Amino acid sequence: MNIKKNSIALHHQLNGKIEIKSKCQIRSQDDLSLIYTPGVAEVCREIIAFPEKVYDLTIKKNTIAIITDGSAVLGLGNIGPQAALPVMEGKAVLFKEYADINAFPICLNTQNTHEIIAIIKNIMPVFAGINLEDIAAPRCFEIEQSLQEIGIPVFHDDQHGTAIVLLAALKNAAILAGKNLKDLKVVINGAGAAGIAIAELLRCVNYDADVCESIKELIICDSRGIVSSSREDIKLLTDNHPKKKLTKISNQKNITGSLADAIVGADVFIGVSKGNLLTEPMVRSMASKSIIFALANPDPEIDPILAKKAGAFIIGTGRSDFANQINNALVFPGIFRGALDARALKITNRMKWAAAHALADSVKGLHVDHILPAVLDKEYVENIASAVARAYIDEYKTAEV
Amino acid sequence: MNIKKNSIALHHQLNGKIEIKSKCQIRSQDDLSLIYTPGVAEVCREIIAFPEKVYDLTIKKNTIAIITDGSAVLGLGNIGPQAALPVMEGKAVLFKEYADINAFPICLNTQNTHEIIAIIKNIMPVFAGINLEDIAAPRCFEIEQSLQEIGIPVFHDDQHGTAIVLLAALKNAAILAGKNLKDLKVVINGAGAAGIAIAELLRCVNYDADVCESIKELIICDSRGIVSSSREDIKLLTDNHPKKKLTKISNQKNITGSLADAIVGADVFIGVSKGNLLTEPMVRSMASKSIIFALANPDPEIDPILAKKAGAFIIGTGRSDFANQINNALVFPGIFRGALDARALKITNRMKWAAAHALADSVKGLHVDHILPAVLDKEYVENIASAVARAYIDEYKTAEV
Repeated sequence: MNIKKNSIALHHQLNGKIEIKSKCQIRSQDDLSLIYTPGVAEVCREIIAFPEKVYDLTIKKNTIAIITDGSAVLGLGNIGPQAALPVMEGKAVLFKEYADINAFPICLNTQNTHEIIAIIKNIMPVFAGINLEDIAAPRCFEIEQSLQEIGIPVFHDDQHGTAIVLLAALKNAAILAGKNLKDLKVVINGAGAAGIAIAELLRCVNYDADVCESIKELIICDSRGIVSSSREDIKLLTDNHPKKKLTKISNQKNITGSLADAIVGADVFIGVSKGNLLTEPMVRSMASKSIIFALANPDPEIDPILAKKAGAFIIGTGRSDFANQINNALVFPGIFRGALDARALKITNRMKWAAAHALADSVKGLHVDHILPAVLDKEYVENIASAVARAYIDEYKTAEV
Repeated sequence: MNIKKNSIALHHQLNGKIEIKSKCQIRSQDDLSLIYTPGVAEVCREIIAFPEKVYDLTIKKNTIAIITDGSAVLGLGNIGPQAALPVMEGKAVLFKEYADINAFPICLNTQNTHEIIAIIKNIMPVFAGINLEDIAAPRCFEIEQSLQEIGIPVFHDDQHGTAIVLLAALKNAAILAGKNLKDLKVVINGAGAAGIAIAELLRCVNYDADVCESIKELIICDSRGIVSSSREDIKLLTDNHPKKKLTKISNQKNITGSLADAIVGADVFIGVSKGNLLTEPMVRSMASKSIIFALANPDPEIDPILAKKAGAFIIGTGRSDFANQINNALVFPGIFRGALDARALKITNRMKWAAAHALADSVKGLHVDHILPAVLDKEYVENIASAVARAYIDEYKTAEV
């Protein structure tokens, strides 16, 4: 199949991958009076009197926004809001088909952090959740952070969706390798939005000790090598710069050097960077039963065939044409389904942790070439959703009773 | 039928009157590759290279936003964005069922004019049109005016939808009364958003002389009586205040007084004000074959039965339980269908005028109790749409050729 050509032809034919559908037919004056004026006025009055009823009487309960500024779309970069729209529609299709969620794309004409925050606060009345998408770092951190208390879940998929699916993959890979998750020595290459979210999840930043089991040894590299508080460029950063914060949660021995130095003896390589920068000698320098997750798209950090040849035990990529696709499409439908079902006010760390474990546990026939479910399986969506809803209820609603 | 009770029950049962529907099924890895990654990247690239293709390759071409700040909803007033949502969903149902347009409700948490303008400019990439809805005057004027050149049609339905349906009703009523439209003496009671839009349309403000036939004699009243440049409160207003502008297009003889004074000898009363303020003696003081459009909801400016008793020739109201319902649901589906079909950059005065005439001409079996089509008829939608598209093409696209 010629994917490029067929995809454009399909999009030309569809004129949009989603549509608004009416759930009501208007066959009589009575129908019109009930769904529009004068009957609808009574529904408005009910919401004025009992604001919570907006969840039952309107689309709100099951509707989310997919919001992007088009600044970091796929591997394409800063392509702007209109060119980003086909991706957002694709996500909306997955939300609907996999989790029966109404997701509407909002593509913004601005890349100003404060404007984006203000817009989201101002358009939220219709939505029960906000999926932030393809927003460049560091803007994405500030936007998500500022919106944590607005009263509906706000979730930047490129960060947390990626981190959750990665943790699920790692959990199952560790089982197959006969290693304890917490004892793994992990190297992350890439200190952007996804790399930071993965590091924070693996190190249980802001997690309760009883929920999360922290990876003990973590080193993060960027294009200049190992992220370390001794590095001159990092010394110059302010204390709340994301990269400065990384020095607090990784590299406990404060070593310096290159990726090649960091990788020696590592159990796990996680690449969220660029293609073809992990070499065969580097893989050979890793611990036995090494695990490689090379997520760069379209070209992974190492070709899976070369990695295997160099002795890797398990290899996963972002691509659908290799085994072990590590795809955040495995996460976002289920995590929002669970959050909406619990009518969660936010997506907490417990919910993310629960999602990762539910996803890992959904695999049947665990095998080095099958550490995650296939996206098409669908069953994992419900497993994630119920685990996520339960995690929220355990954390918040039980206390209310 | 108990409309209030049944409407709430129906809304409880539906949990939203619209939903997002996927137009694609995901049955195989190939399907996924075409609608999502990696295939979708090629569609993004196509839009980067040819920005106009966003109209063909995404939902944009047939998608509009229904935007409100919840400040002037039905007769309920300033009820806020969440309580306004059921009305916006009702409009979305009508857009879909009557004109096959995907309309998504955006209910804003702000009532600040400049914030609203900025938000609309920032969220417009996904939309091919903006239906402003239930936004209070004078804010609605500034918002609509500021957005006329953004490159997609922006239309405040409460103003122009109402004015257009009113003009259609007036055209047919004049035919039945054997009077010339332009010779009518018209009194409008109410100087809010709808009253001003009706006055401007009847007086052809900003219209080309060859398109629009102006009503020669127009008087506008507000709660203090006849709007006149001699009135002390109006003298104090700035020149660009909407009410000050009304003195330029009405009341040429500059008379002062009350509605009772204005109405003597009038052919037409148009009420966009409050219930029960037009009295039987006032109706008796009108010209023969008088026309009364009493649009206040739920109680018209005069009970139709009393109006007839007092000698009114034709009476129309906003209500579905009387003859001659003057409902802007007759207008908005067709006018946007026409604008989208022509890929119009704005909705011009010519398009509004064409819509009014197409609607009037859609009536079959013209009669004093049947001056407009019933909303359920649907045929008028296509008539309006093609007249509106033609008007735009005549005005703009012909010149381009």
